[in-house]
Amino acid sequence: MPSLLIRNADWIATQNEKREVIRNASILIRDGVITEIGNRVQSADAEIDGKGKIALPGLINTHTHLSMTLFRGFADDMLLQDWLQKKIWPLEAKHTDETCYFGALLGSAEMIMSGTTTLMDMYFHMDKVAKAVNESGLRGFLSHGLIDFFDQAKARLEQDSTRKFFDFVRTLANPRIRFAVGPHAPYTCSEEMLLWAKEFAEKNGAIVHIHVAETRREQADFQKQHGMRVVEYLDKIGALSKNMLAAHCAWLTKSEIRLLGKAGVSVAHCPVSNMKIATGGVAALPEMFEEGLAVGLGTDSASSNNTLDMFETMKVCALLQKAHRWDPTVLNAQKALDLATIDGARALGVQKEIGSIEAGKRADIILIDARAPNMVPIHGKDTVISDLVYSVSAANVDTTIVDGHVLMQNREIKSLNMDEILPKAQELALQMVAS
Amino acid sequence: MPSLLIRNADWIATQNEKREVIRNASILIRDGVITEIGNRVQSADAEIDGKGKIALPGLINTHTHLSMTLFRGFADDMLLQDWLQKKIWPLEAKHTDETCYFGALLGSAEMIMSGTTTLMDMYFHMDKVAKAVNESGLRGFLSHGLIDFFDQAKARLEQDSTRKFFDFVRTLANPRIRFAVGPHAPYTCSEEMLLWAKEFAEKNGAIVHIHVAETRREQADFQKQHGMRVVEYLDKIGALSKNMLAAHCAWLTKSEIRLLGKAGVSVAHCPVSNMKIATGGVAALPEMFEEGLAVGLGTDSASSNNTLDMFETMKVCALLQKAHRWDPTVLNAQKALDLATIDGARALGVQKEIGSIEAGKRADIILIDARAPNMVPIHGKDTVISDLVYSVSAANVDTTIVDGHVLMQNREIKSLNMDEILPKAQELALQMVAS
Repeated sequence: MPSLLIRNADWIATQNEKREVIRNASILIRDGVITEIGNRVQSADAEIDGKGKIALPGLINTHTHLSMTLFRGFADDMLLQDWLQKKIWPLEAKHTDETCYFGALLGSAEMIMSGTTTLMDMYFHMDKVAKAVNESGLRGFLSHGLIDFFDQAKARLEQDSTRKFFDFVRTLANPRIRFAVGPHAPYTCSEEMLLWAKEFAEKNGAIVHIHVAETRREQADFQKQHGMRVVEYLDKIGALSKNMLAAHCAWLTKSEIRLLGKAGVSVAHCPVSNMKIATGGVAALPEMFEEGLAVGLGTDSASSNNTLDMFETMKVCALLQKAHRWDPTVLNAQKALDLATIDGARALGVQKEIGSIEAGKRADIILIDARAPNMVPIHGKDTVISDLVYSVSAANVDTTIVDGHVLMQNREIKSLNMDEILPKAQELALQMVAS
Repeated sequence: MPSLLIRNADWIATQNEKREVIRNASILIRDGVITEIGNRVQSADAEIDGKGKIALPGLINTHTHLSMTLFRGFADDMLLQDWLQKKIWPLEAKHTDETCYFGALLGSAEMIMSGTTTLMDMYFHMDKVAKAVNESGLRGFLSHGLIDFFDQAKARLEQDSTRKFFDFVRTLANPRIRFAVGPHAPYTCSEEMLLWAKEFAEKNGAIVHIHVAETRREQADFQKQHGMRVVEYLDKIGALSKNMLAAHCAWLTKSEIRLLGKAGVSVAHCPVSNMKIATGGVAALPEMFEEGLAVGLGTDSASSNNTLDMFETMKVCALLQKAHRWDPTVLNAQKALDLATIDGARALGVQKEIGSIEAGKRADIILIDARAPNMVPIHGKDTVISDLVYSVSAANVDTTIVDGHVLMQNREIKSLNMDEILPKAQELALQMVAS
């Protein structure tokens, strides 16, 4: 693999342990790994000019459903249950290998263009999603969504699908594509399914990706049905584990957060989707940090967000906590960027591989073009992080690099054929609605 | 003035009375006025290809401080009073004609690139701001910020500045640049000043642009000092009027909203700035709508937002109301777009001139390039508005037209020299902080 030099970037937001921001330095990449950061004259097989640019770690989207990008804008401003039952579920029943594949390609393209380099997905037809993510060059953690609705026969079929998908991911032999187990939620999965998921994940060193406490209704229903809250239930049946990544966690008590902390569960916080669906509750991030939980950010799907833009999610995350707590200091720009980078990596258990720009880490790097009106002025080293969270737009992303491969440069996607994907995605979306 | 044809736009979100969305149609502009919308073959002196694009009215930013764009990112994540006293006010004391001019040019450039065509400003060195906005081609309502701190001598000086600025605006002889009166806030202006502002505005057919009830502290202080709430005070002294545009209004009771409604006061709602500063209160938009108030959206300044991106503001506005009210239906995409277009025009009293794409209105039009991953798919006429609020990014704005003048095309600003403005703004910002 040819070596790559990012020459003399204006700023590097390393996101290393000390959260160093480095002025005017270069980054050398060999075999997909960052080998050197500094000012010595270097050469490499290929070069990218860093002038006028800010380098930062590629963003990590810890909760999404790529194929649902085909449903973007299809139904909005509705109550969650109406939205699911009248709009989304009927449409999902029409998904095919082809629609899931092109939906995932479309979503991957949007991610590359908005600076995301790693994603955690849950959906159906996952071999096609894996094919799409594989082609896109992104780093993906992929889970087949397990739903048994408390039916044993259905449970067995779903477990078979997961095993098949596990085998399929191995055939790809791409270290960037990783298998995860995806029990959908405690209200759609039997106790047996949840425990099977935990065991299968442990056996295979995989993450258990699950929706937890997205809405108040979910908590109310659990209280009625089980006489306890959602996380208390998961704890009681023994489903919690350090492999678990719980998406949303928007309606938790402090004692539920404590249970998650004890078990070592990680959280994928999705502020834009939560606000748009009007789940009402605001994820108690400060309390999660106190309990030592690893928290990452997610966009959720483009049908509930309606973008896959992690820069937007970072800013909204900070805004929401500040507004909700009446305190502008409760979640600052540095922490918002942490959530989208190194903390996201920790939530996925890969903080030794990605999440920061440091020698020895995989080269997942994005470059922001700071020569745009919305990025001027930059007041100095102390404000770069703030600029990256509050001022930047996804459109300022100039270059996206994963594992040393340049997936986009000068806003042109290298890994995917947009002239094919965009019209095909449009056509398939209309067909699904019309059929 | 040469005529201009936008040929065959994919979609036109007219924002007319019926909120019609028109498929595949052209827009003819003569002498800065929209003269025809439809499908008949037409010709004009100049043409813009509308293929793959969505036309909508230019966005209206009803509250900002352009020159503060130089302070973007300078100080964030701070308590409001610390931020003002330790960071912003000392820096503002260093403003000169030159810094205010280049700050305003920088802000204008960002507005053009993010689809804003009309703005309402309040600041100092306003002749320089007016010069900048005049050069940019934007439509601007501009007010000199009046602050007397209850000192009569200061009040007289400030009134002189306003009269001088009023005369200066007349010398520009540009119908797009309009004078407004800018008493800063009830807590920085004496009763005499507020009443003078009202009278001067009435005499000259101008808007009274003022900050009202931005924070809880402001309400608490008023209660202590005057034994009543801010709007009750304004009502009691007779300062309310149909000319008044009250920015923020984030901490109002229902009875205060009723007082505003009775007096015909308009509101500039700034959700991103309010959330970032953590004012805590959420503007009670549904109650304002019930009372018939004209409500527009504002970004506030780039030092508290930190962008001037009205697309971001629209989305965050909808998200905040939904999350706060636990109801996804409380403010839908159509209403969010209304606030940023036709309702904003109403808040500025110019709904007969701008705010929609209709024959007879001034040609303030923007074109969105829908051939980007984040704008695919478009499900049809019923979802275009949703796409324009929840999916779009400011970077999708391809063309910005004000009064029939093309200020940007293919994302290239025509009216301003960016090669001069960006480095100069950067340089001046650093000088201000260092000096």
